[in-house]
Amino acid sequence: MADFELDPRLAADTHAVADWPVSRVLLMDDARFPWLILVPRVAGARELHALPEATRAALFDEVVRAAAALERATGATKMNVAALGNLVPQLHVHVIARHEGDAAWPGPVWGMPGSQPRAEGPRRELLARFEAALPSGATAP
Amino acid sequence: MADFELDPRLAADTHAVADWPVSRVLLMDDARFPWLILVPRVAGARELHALPEATRAALFDEVVRAAAALERATGATKMNVAALGNLVPQLHVHVIARHEGDAAWPGPVWGMPGSQPRAEGPRRELLARFEAALPSGATAP
Repeated sequence: MADFELDPRLAADTHAVADWPVSRVLLMDDARFPWLILVPRVAGARELHALPEATRAALFDEVVRAAAALERATGATKMNVAALGNLVPQLHVHVIARHEGDAAWPGPVWGMPGSQPRAEGPRRELLARFEAALPSGATAP
Repeated sequence: MADFELDPRLAADTHAVADWPVSRVLLMDDARFPWLILVPRVAGARELHALPEATRAALFDEVVRAAAALERATGATKMNVAALGNLVPQLHVHVIARHEGDAAWPGPVWGMPGSQPRAEGPRRELLARFEAALPSGATAP
């Protein structure tokens, strides 16, 4: 995975959280939604079905792990999990904790105007809750 | 899976395509987008991470298989794969072939007004191309 480079738009819109075995885990810089993005560190990856099978299975495991922990950390009404990539084709998977009545509810979060940057305190607090909710209690699987 | 019942809203918005080992495969009745929905036939399922591990792995395989075939069948610019469920909590996975310049491009398809029912001829033609693009050449894996 030596040639992997995070897309500049993803880099600009997020805070880096951790590198898991397959994914770079990012936190979207929008305080309205607890919103992680998992980017497999595979150069040139665009589509889930085009990933090597073992990499894809490991990515899915990491997505499921992130969704379970973010749900526990936030008490979400519903988790949204999605690989879209119409604007940023680098393969990335959104893991978003949705709450009834949140700024986009019940619609999707993408393209909602009015993004609110995260203050450092609430960001650290959310990530601490997320990490505590991971099955192993640590950031890396 | 004896107690599984398809959510009435999903049933009303789609045509049934096939029952694969885990999923009921549906075609969204909106001619603007080649849009499949895979619903695991598991009563009460709401979240990917809460599915039994073997069921989830089989569902992911079916999602990947559907995405690869729908991409081949349509020449999509980008596949969109998503489990949202804010409106219909029954677990279902969208597999949507997106084309640059389509009715929602580059935004997401959900909640776009102006749905256009599919005429029978184009619907049959799309499904025939989809089935021909499946790795085995048949509808069931």
